[in-house]
Amino acid sequence: MEIQPARHSHVLDPFVDRYAARTAGMTASEIRALFAVASRPEVVSLAGGMPNISGLPLDVVGGAISDLVATQGPVAMQYGSGQGVPELREQICDVMRLEGIEASADDVVVTVGSQQAVDLVTRVFCDPGDVVICEAPSYVGALGVFRSYQCEVVHADMDAHGLVPEALRQAIRATKAAGKRIKFLYTIPNFHNPAGVTLSAERRPEILEICQSEGILILEDNPYGLLGFDREPMRAMRADAADGVIYLGSFSKTFAPGFRVGWALAPASVREKLVLAQESATLCPPQFSQMAISAYLAQHDWQGQIKQFREMYRERRDAMTSALSDLMPAAVRWNVPDGGFYVWLTLPPGINAKAMLPRAVTARVAYVPGTAFFSDGFGSSAMRLSYCYPTPDRIREGVRRLAGVLEAEIELHSTFGTGTDTAELRLGSRGVENPGTDVH
Amino acid sequence: MEIQPARHSHVLDPFVDRYAARTAGMTASEIRALFAVASRPEVVSLAGGMPNISGLPLDVVGGAISDLVATQGPVAMQYGSGQGVPELREQICDVMRLEGIEASADDVVVTVGSQQAVDLVTRVFCDPGDVVICEAPSYVGALGVFRSYQCEVVHADMDAHGLVPEALRQAIRATKAAGKRIKFLYTIPNFHNPAGVTLSAERRPEILEICQSEGILILEDNPYGLLGFDREPMRAMRADAADGVIYLGSFSKTFAPGFRVGWALAPASVREKLVLAQESATLCPPQFSQMAISAYLAQHDWQGQIKQFREMYRERRDAMTSALSDLMPAAVRWNVPDGGFYVWLTLPPGINAKAMLPRAVTARVAYVPGTAFFSDGFGSSAMRLSYCYPTPDRIREGVRRLAGVLEAEIELHSTFGTGTDTAELRLGSRGVENPGTDVH
Repeated sequence: MEIQPARHSHVLDPFVDRYAARTAGMTASEIRALFAVASRPEVVSLAGGMPNISGLPLDVVGGAISDLVATQGPVAMQYGSGQGVPELREQICDVMRLEGIEASADDVVVTVGSQQAVDLVTRVFCDPGDVVICEAPSYVGALGVFRSYQCEVVHADMDAHGLVPEALRQAIRATKAAGKRIKFLYTIPNFHNPAGVTLSAERRPEILEICQSEGILILEDNPYGLLGFDREPMRAMRADAADGVIYLGSFSKTFAPGFRVGWALAPASVREKLVLAQESATLCPPQFSQMAISAYLAQHDWQGQIKQFREMYRERRDAMTSALSDLMPAAVRWNVPDGGFYVWLTLPPGINAKAMLPRAVTARVAYVPGTAFFSDGFGSSAMRLSYCYPTPDRIREGVRRLAGVLEAEIELHSTFGTGTDTAELRLGSRGVENPGTDVH
Repeated sequence: MEIQPARHSHVLDPFVDRYAARTAGMTASEIRALFAVASRPEVVSLAGGMPNISGLPLDVVGGAISDLVATQGPVAMQYGSGQGVPELREQICDVMRLEGIEASADDVVVTVGSQQAVDLVTRVFCDPGDVVICEAPSYVGALGVFRSYQCEVVHADMDAHGLVPEALRQAIRATKAAGKRIKFLYTIPNFHNPAGVTLSAERRPEILEICQSEGILILEDNPYGLLGFDREPMRAMRADAADGVIYLGSFSKTFAPGFRVGWALAPASVREKLVLAQESATLCPPQFSQMAISAYLAQHDWQGQIKQFREMYRERRDAMTSALSDLMPAAVRWNVPDGGFYVWLTLPPGINAKAMLPRAVTARVAYVPGTAFFSDGFGSSAMRLSYCYPTPDRIREGVRRLAGVLEAEIELHSTFGTGTDTAELRLGSRGVENPGTDVH
């Protein structure tokens, strides 16, 4: 049999020469490749970001939706406005008021999860080659969107108090010096995914001031803001800068993700563009989902439900951080998040989280390697652990397995050495401000 | 007070210099501008494409969704696969089998309505400047997507039997001669929106053969295929060319649009790209919507329901075409569609449907001017009338009002003349093959 590798690959994808240039940036994320493995029941997945919605009152939700079909079925099942259901947009304003935002429902655009909001904002603002400034590390799903629009991502360091203002200034200076156009700062100020840190109240005006004086829009992505463990929600940056901030919210973590309802709150001119983009993308967001959530919010003590979620996630955070304290080798470091879903682990020099992953999965535990959260290959000696979905017992068991794998790695490394590769040296230079290093 | 027009427009949109180049193509459609007007109760809207879902069995739908929440709530409300719910994808294959398609659920990607499928396919294939060949006229929502991806649309004429093979050949030749890259043919073979015609069985192999020999992919958009009045569904082009066709389907017209569930069936390599694009756009399509539709399909005689829809729409088609016969001035022409939602009206020379629209709305009837369905300014003496949503009595009343407006226009034109503008001359050259001219 003749070997024809070139032709064989042509047979594999006959369209290979026809795709748009942007598809070069559309590759399977490291999280996605993990899903198949991590969903096997014997594996403790500390990888995914699925909320635990088992505490939702199914009778209340079922009743609200039954009523909706019976009383408003023909409206709920019909096409709706591209901007979203007006009544829900009013309720979204009530939700945002908890973070100090006074907004008009006219400036809210409902999206298919806040993921779609990131997509639509990027669609409206970014030409190929435009720069988006992101925290280091940043949300893997947003990095994927920026890549798919052929943007360049420039990272700015965080520390235990969130984005470092001086790092932001440096990133802006360097980008402008290189003659590139910055379209916006993408930031997750509260209970950061993946870093687990929160931008301090003291820094918020400074970050706003920097962006305002440099003419840079802020994309404030806030899916976790109401899920703090220890205090009232922080004041949103949008609350103090209506003109310079596009704020993104979501019901995925405070209610349920399966309805795919998020939103963007934007300055009026941007909002108009987002509505046009939404109509082009989907005609309108799911009307039934929106009215179901609207009915839930109207009929249920949704703030009480969020309080229950916070207590449940705090218990899981405690399970994870106490297991980490009890079980992890001494050289491993992490932060203790005071809200949200994630802990960011920094490994000792020479340990590569991505290379180690197959051995971890063999030991029946999964995580996301740190490299997924950087656009530039950094993060190889870090990982994200999620405590949102597994039970406390499973979390402890997962950490135990992971600690065992790490101990073996560290021992192997100290016995044989593996050298320190370039990427790790570069990460090291960022490690000074690494959010994982301060608390533990 | 000083007049500062430049500065004033800057105040209106402070972001005007920052948007992506693609936003130049993202403008409010003529249909959208009409919505506010046409939704006033005193106006008979023959403009929109909303299905009439009042015949849906609300008790069945409500029961199915109640059961869904009670028995599978935590799954239905959770994140799902980017490709869509596997069970629903199997059921989608059952639906497509009615049109002769034998497909694997592995090659189906669920989308947020088939509008999102058009968006994702364009995202995957089209760089700025790439050409999409579309029928003349074509679906306004698809033209909007192509514009937003900075594609060039080249129209190919239709007649009473759908897309004219020789027109397609000419369009391909001219485009290639101009050194441009054709990415796909976008076609609506059944009960065309807006032209109301169906691609004949005789022409289908010829269209397939042309595209195959020219290396052009076909995007077969088929929301209305099961809504024929007089015969069994036509065999889909995808049924005879699995490798060269991306097939789009939707539950919006055969069930209900408010769930926003459509799909793409694509060759495996393209399907992989579409899943990545879907994950980037929304993470996953709405899980709750998908499982609700899946439950409806499993528990209800959905084919019987479609039969009821067909009978209801046939009655409305009859109401419209008999009113047109009874009431329209002699020089107006239209086709009699044998399925779907739309009649395409061609007006006498010199009558401009877009210019006439304000007078029609004053007379309390709305339609969509033909120009909305061309990328190039053609269509000024045509309009789309929808019979899907108003009751037969209202349809007749709407046609009566429209006939009155047209009579006055024609009289005004014959008394004073208005000259024939260039755009109309160009339309005239297309009018020979115009789908509106054959039946009446």
